[in-house]
Amino acid sequence: MDGVNHQFQLAARPVGLPKPSDWRYADAPVSEPGDGEVLVKVLYVSLDPAMRAWMNDARSYMPPVGIGEVMRALAAGEVIASNHPDVAVGDHVTGLLGVQEYAVAHGAAVMKVDTTLAPLPVHLGTLGMPGMTAYFGLLDIGRPVEGNTVVVSGAAGAVGGVVGQIAKLKGCRVVGVAGGSEKCRHLVEDLGFDAAIDYKSQDVGAALSEHCPKGIDIYFDNVGGDILDGALAHLARNARVVICGAISQYNSTGAITGPSNYLSLLVNHASMTGFVVSDYGARYAEGAREMGGWLAQGKLISREDIAEGFENFPDTLLRLFRGENTGKLVLRVAGD
Amino acid sequence: MDGVNHQFQLAARPVGLPKPSDWRYADAPVSEPGDGEVLVKVLYVSLDPAMRAWMNDARSYMPPVGIGEVMRALAAGEVIASNHPDVAVGDHVTGLLGVQEYAVAHGAAVMKVDTTLAPLPVHLGTLGMPGMTAYFGLLDIGRPVEGNTVVVSGAAGAVGGVVGQIAKLKGCRVVGVAGGSEKCRHLVEDLGFDAAIDYKSQDVGAALSEHCPKGIDIYFDNVGGDILDGALAHLARNARVVICGAISQYNSTGAITGPSNYLSLLVNHASMTGFVVSDYGARYAEGAREMGGWLAQGKLISREDIAEGFENFPDTLLRLFRGENTGKLVLRVAGD
Repeated sequence: MDGVNHQFQLAARPVGLPKPSDWRYADAPVSEPGDGEVLVKVLYVSLDPAMRAWMNDARSYMPPVGIGEVMRALAAGEVIASNHPDVAVGDHVTGLLGVQEYAVAHGAAVMKVDTTLAPLPVHLGTLGMPGMTAYFGLLDIGRPVEGNTVVVSGAAGAVGGVVGQIAKLKGCRVVGVAGGSEKCRHLVEDLGFDAAIDYKSQDVGAALSEHCPKGIDIYFDNVGGDILDGALAHLARNARVVICGAISQYNSTGAITGPSNYLSLLVNHASMTGFVVSDYGARYAEGAREMGGWLAQGKLISREDIAEGFENFPDTLLRLFRGENTGKLVLRVAGD
Repeated sequence: MDGVNHQFQLAARPVGLPKPSDWRYADAPVSEPGDGEVLVKVLYVSLDPAMRAWMNDARSYMPPVGIGEVMRALAAGEVIASNHPDVAVGDHVTGLLGVQEYAVAHGAAVMKVDTTLAPLPVHLGTLGMPGMTAYFGLLDIGRPVEGNTVVVSGAAGAVGGVVGQIAKLKGCRVVGVAGGSEKCRHLVEDLGFDAAIDYKSQDVGAALSEHCPKGIDIYFDNVGGDILDGALAHLARNARVVICGAISQYNSTGAITGPSNYLSLLVNHASMTGFVVSDYGARYAEGAREMGGWLAQGKLISREDIAEGFENFPDTLLRLFRGENTGKLVLRVAGD
């Protein structure tokens, strides 16, 4: 296969926020797919908070990305060569294709997606990993009951926006915490949240008292840090705290800040439970079916934030960690 | 009623460990019981970690003890006058009788106990609040399964020793964390724990790695702080962390230290759930029946640490917070 495959390799393990020298922008040849493999032209790269953890040399649910390796990322693209019987040239697929223009993957390691159901970026967001994260985290761990008060942080992000909308579909009162007035407007006016708290301009504790007079039944946490502590201080009895992420901590250069209000769990007979979406791998089809139905019926709104230009990957990842995106942040690599 | 009722009143809210000037030792008259009330001669006062929280002016599951009020405490004694049809003179009872020699309480607010089943101090320990705490916390929240690895901190205390013994009865491998070699010997030799870790002389993390090669399925936490963090770093998948107490933090003069390893919950699909024993008030009879049976059959060993002399209450409470007791710490007020 002729052509150049631009890629971002991990050059060094970041301390704090990734800096330009942590990346190596490289030209590799486009590989030929081997037996059972497919060659995918990458159209969109997904930017996800978990990527920061993959850059650390620490035990986690996935091994770290090695120095000199292509940076791991979810991505979506079009199959341009296939040696796998279940995948055809022209199919659209998603998978852990990496931050590169062309990826070779095993045919069983990519997932075919239906672009007549929703555009390709939606399959990296609401119908992809963030959507499944929202769906199983809220329904399986949060266990919403009609009338519950649900608070979600990182509410304008890819996961948070879906969490809040599903909670509304289940008859809950939903309060989102996000940074900035435009995000807060989006939550209430576009996504139908009952209230939004701008943590950059408001006292989160006071706002939680105002918007959750009966306490928080479900707190879905994407951010950790002070906002987690604020929510813990407002739990209702038998509350469920869902630990989905801690983006405020991922670029910390010191120790992670633990929730100093955790004894609120004791006083309120409450639980705090963590998960990663792959825990629910066996049930993705169930989630995709229900989420796809809600999307088709207009009950679920999907918002994507599409950045342009493959060479802008490092800056786009920083936008994610600075909380500058609204909805699912993806990088367009080539036209689809 | 003639006579003097010595009592300890809360004179000031402690900062850190309670100091002598936080108490007022007072002589009050012995009150007459009113309608429906009983007069109890207190024989044993129970010393429990929760007492420290009751001394703070903070919202909790019980209101704080007011300045000038008799210090709240569980206690056991003998009824010497009764205006309640269900309680007779000569009955032995337990209840929130306070740190005093004579207590007036409503007849419905005390619990009659059977001293032929076990001596009175046991009804403040294994058959009392600490025993119920161990029973419901382990069985209802920890949900032990045969073959699970169970770690309990504060293991030589009134709750921890019972937690470990029940876990053994359920077929679990049990590791206790306690302070000092004599306590560790007691856990293994007297109570049948599989292993004990002396946090004062051992590296808790290394010892957990050694004794829990497959990770911790249930961690029952009585202490908080570094030991909680160490246990979080060793969780098995689907682990349950039971938050029962945090005695290492109760006398802290700064903010409570939150568990900085809480994201281990996320990686391991694990939960951390808190409770107070009164959450299970409706099921005490169930717990007392089963625990009483185990005790009668010799399957459960009850250990009490009996201090002498009512005037020694302030020092005895400090012994609790310094971790100097083995088993249930009670103060003998008068001979039974």
